[in-house]
Amino acid sequence: MVAETGIAAELIDLLSVFVIAAGVGVFVAKIGRFPYTIALLLAGLAVSILDISIDIALSHDLILLVFLPPLLFEGAATTDLERFRRNLWHVLVLAVVGLILAILLLGVVGHFAFGFPLLVSLLFAAMILPTDPVSVLALFEELGAPERLSVLVEGESLVNDGVGVVIFSTLFALVVQSTEAGTELAQLITTDTIVAASTDIVVASTGGAIVGLVTGLAVYQVMYRLDEHTTEIVLTLVLAYGSFLLAEHTLSGVIGDYYFSGVIATVTAGLLIGNRGAEYAMSAQTKISVFNTWDTAAFLVNTLIFLLIGAKTPINQVLTHGRLILIAIPLVVLARAAVVYPITTLVNQFVPKGVPLEYQHIMVWGGLHASIPIALVLGLPENFPFREELRAMVFGVAAFSLVVQGLTMGRVMNALDIVTRSEAEELYELLVGRARAVDAALESAADLHDAGDLSPSVYEDFRVEYQNEKDDLKEAISLLLDANPELRREELLVGERRVLKQEKSALMDAMRTGAVSDDVGHRLMEEVDLKLDRVESGESTVTDRPEEGYEEFWRSRAREFGLESRLEATEADDD
Amino acid sequence: MVAETGIAAELIDLLSVFVIAAGVGVFVAKIGRFPYTIALLLAGLAVSILDISIDIALSHDLILLVFLPPLLFEGAATTDLERFRRNLWHVLVLAVVGLILAILLLGVVGHFAFGFPLLVSLLFAAMILPTDPVSVLALFEELGAPERLSVLVEGESLVNDGVGVVIFSTLFALVVQSTEAGTELAQLITTDTIVAASTDIVVASTGGAIVGLVTGLAVYQVMYRLDEHTTEIVLTLVLAYGSFLLAEHTLSGVIGDYYFSGVIATVTAGLLIGNRGAEYAMSAQTKISVFNTWDTAAFLVNTLIFLLIGAKTPINQVLTHGRLILIAIPLVVLARAAVVYPITTLVNQFVPKGVPLEYQHIMVWGGLHASIPIALVLGLPENFPFREELRAMVFGVAAFSLVVQGLTMGRVMNALDIVTRSEAEELYELLVGRARAVDAALESAADLHDAGDLSPSVYEDFRVEYQNEKDDLKEAISLLLDANPELRREELLVGERRVLKQEKSALMDAMRTGAVSDDVGHRLMEEVDLKLDRVESGESTVTDRPEEGYEEFWRSRAREFGLESRLEATEADDD
Repeated sequence: MVAETGIAAELIDLLSVFVIAAGVGVFVAKIGRFPYTIALLLAGLAVSILDISIDIALSHDLILLVFLPPLLFEGAATTDLERFRRNLWHVLVLAVVGLILAILLLGVVGHFAFGFPLLVSLLFAAMILPTDPVSVLALFEELGAPERLSVLVEGESLVNDGVGVVIFSTLFALVVQSTEAGTELAQLITTDTIVAASTDIVVASTGGAIVGLVTGLAVYQVMYRLDEHTTEIVLTLVLAYGSFLLAEHTLSGVIGDYYFSGVIATVTAGLLIGNRGAEYAMSAQTKISVFNTWDTAAFLVNTLIFLLIGAKTPINQVLTHGRLILIAIPLVVLARAAVVYPITTLVNQFVPKGVPLEYQHIMVWGGLHASIPIALVLGLPENFPFREELRAMVFGVAAFSLVVQGLTMGRVMNALDIVTRSEAEELYELLVGRARAVDAALESAADLHDAGDLSPSVYEDFRVEYQNEKDDLKEAISLLLDANPELRREELLVGERRVLKQEKSALMDAMRTGAVSDDVGHRLMEEVDLKLDRVESGESTVTDRPEEGYEEFWRSRAREFGLESRLEATEADDD
Repeated sequence: MVAETGIAAELIDLLSVFVIAAGVGVFVAKIGRFPYTIALLLAGLAVSILDISIDIALSHDLILLVFLPPLLFEGAATTDLERFRRNLWHVLVLAVVGLILAILLLGVVGHFAFGFPLLVSLLFAAMILPTDPVSVLALFEELGAPERLSVLVEGESLVNDGVGVVIFSTLFALVVQSTEAGTELAQLITTDTIVAASTDIVVASTGGAIVGLVTGLAVYQVMYRLDEHTTEIVLTLVLAYGSFLLAEHTLSGVIGDYYFSGVIATVTAGLLIGNRGAEYAMSAQTKISVFNTWDTAAFLVNTLIFLLIGAKTPINQVLTHGRLILIAIPLVVLARAAVVYPITTLVNQFVPKGVPLEYQHIMVWGGLHASIPIALVLGLPENFPFREELRAMVFGVAAFSLVVQGLTMGRVMNALDIVTRSEAEELYELLVGRARAVDAALESAADLHDAGDLSPSVYEDFRVEYQNEKDDLKEAISLLLDANPELRREELLVGERRVLKQEKSALMDAMRTGAVSDDVGHRLMEEVDLKLDRVESGESTVTDRPEEGYEEFWRSRAREFGLESRLEATEADDD
């Protein structure tokens, strides 16, 4: 082979990575039920052990700037905002307070266990403890974890990276300062630095969220006015990287030397576009193209990142510092356990629907540590104290959490009875899913027909075909529900949610066109939101309405207007 | 803005390019009927004139190694092999003999017209004359040219690049040799060099084709045994770049110092995978994912390449050498005309179905010269004779051919009556268009009325008027469809495609909000993909379902669950 330079050489390296990845992909597809990401990591480790060199430098910037934004954006865009909001308290308290407590705990214990200076030990804790959205997302998707559990762990890992990076930066500056000035470390930890660090965290998070919101809304507005799926793909691409870079690089340091979290900016923008954007600003074609593109992009980046982490693990250093790693692994898991259980139990007291204990076990065991810690440790400069030890420890803990925690996760979930769906439930989902698709098809055919794009006779063919299938589905669903009453309740709730959403959309239209004034509209809307909220938390508003005292706003107004008696009569007839 | 270095700076540059591209995309979508690629080029030129610097170096390697393989692969993969084969003689003779003759012609005439030494003039001809698949593919797709015409021009441009690059390399070596040794140019053109050059062309083409065939078959075999769409995407990616690099870089020079054409390798591999591969080795889901991914990838690369060509046009050099460019433009078109007409007429004698004269006009005018010539001229070393002139001429001719030939192509086709639609089709479009306008009018009148901006009696007048027209239109459309069954079929397919996309989008929503779990959702999605795939290949899934044996997945699951007998009974009732 002729020695290559420049672009050709880079391409050949990248290609060899993808050739290995394709091999892993084929292997996983044939073997079945082995997580792809873990297989990639192991293949990478094998490459590293066999001393096959891959000339792609896995740097701090490459992970943080190139790989992370698309993964975060895709992760956020496919998260259901409604569910995220319902678990917001758990997510926020764990990601901010929980992370800080865990860092302090691991830092102090590690100071004695590792024999590092306190600041270095805290720095290690700040690097390793933020859970990693990339690995968690990949794994939970493959395992098909229940939605709420996914949202809890994914949500926490999406948010705590922003916080972790800020704490890391503060500690990093302190270590550099103490090394340069030769001052005592204890002197540096003062009330001032603690206040400054707290302010930094608040500013970084809210600043990041604002950047994400503003850029996201701007792109949303353009997408709302446009129906051209290719350009909309470019727009989301620009948004994913643009929001990150704008917060992390362009704006950070401009306003009073504050840092804004790129992670939080991209996550916010992704949540916005993936939910509101998908609902209101994308046609069916656009939605399919945009989500397919992101799915593929995330897959390719994931492939690269896991393979490279494996291939770039410094095996020799890991072996040299094996003792430190063996101490670090249980400490990291224990530090996480020590905050997750009490905090979740505490927050459970204040929210309507608590997180059950089995979920908490998974939250502890499922908090994987990988790409963010590795990005941070790779960014440490040459002469940083204990650089080699930190490097070995981060790669060691990451490999353990990915391979051991990752591989056992499925079994732990099974043991805790977590992914249990009955066959009836699975069949029900299948029928409902198909019924939705059929409804969408019928609706879109009707639209096409109304718009004159489908002639009556062709439309009739469609309609009959789909209507038959719909009738069959209805029949099958009602047979299934008769045999399984618990499913019936589920269906009631799902149906209610959809009807209420429709009500909401009609109200919005009425307000937009001025048929209903804004203040009246908002009151009506509030009412619907209230009902929606009850439905989301598992209570029906239909069956037990009279006792629960739901009285629609218009009824009371009508009564005030003197229409009372006649309406009551009507209601009595209904019952 | 803080000055950035490394990856961050590169990302910001790339992002700014995509921001401009998004702007162009929005503009084109709003303006309508203006080719996106040409709009990008013009935006790039504007950026260059406004002196906004984009720090991405448009180099020989970047175009040839990074941009070209995916574009060639996508172009070949979406070419119908059958049609390509049926026009093979025209394509091959034009791409090989035609190109050689045109180079000799333009070289000799240019020697006098430009005042360059003969070898330099020949080199210019070899650079500029290969037609460019990238621009041609993009333009023909946007114009919706007839299939045969597309295959002729695209096929020629896919093949002649391989030949052009070999001739260019030979001439390039001769120029360097003559400059270094100070020998007379005439001495270098001997029987030996001509024989050597001919051998080179044959070896490069067949060698490239063999590399493409072997790598393509290897990937085909793996894909045939695999059904995992994400890994199959990686495989095609590896194939597109791998076949190119293997031929162009790894193997070239290994076997007896011969060069193998990467262009031809990638094109061959693309033809194989896009035809045989799509037919036998891909499931519906895989086919849709793979082609969607390549479509998006080609779109993104096209966006980059056209914007960069515009932005990197050396305006000053172009102006300085304006006279040379003005001579070159007509000579290039004439040289092409001088070979296309006689060769096509000659080949027409030997094939069953000749290429009509109108098509030949388009073949001459549609032979655009852009990315390959620009890649070659950017690869000329610093001290190459007449480097600045060649650069100005290539960029000048490229800009002319893209903007002037590109923009007038649609009109030329119309003038030649080439995009001939039947009168029935035209009438159908007219009726449908009017029906849409009437619907919009009715809807907006209703909105105005509902909002109280239109009094009931005036609205009634409107409504009756438009409703009558709508009824008449419906009547006319259904009469037209009755008389033209092929229109009816077309309409059915178009409608079906849109309805199926709506189904897919509903399923994606159901999965995102967790109403349907991911694995059940994916199975349902696969089913829709299967139907979509049939529709794309021209078969309806609606009318002839029972015989074709489409059984939805849910039906078999429901039967397994014991809901069978009752459902069957219901179905029997329906029939």
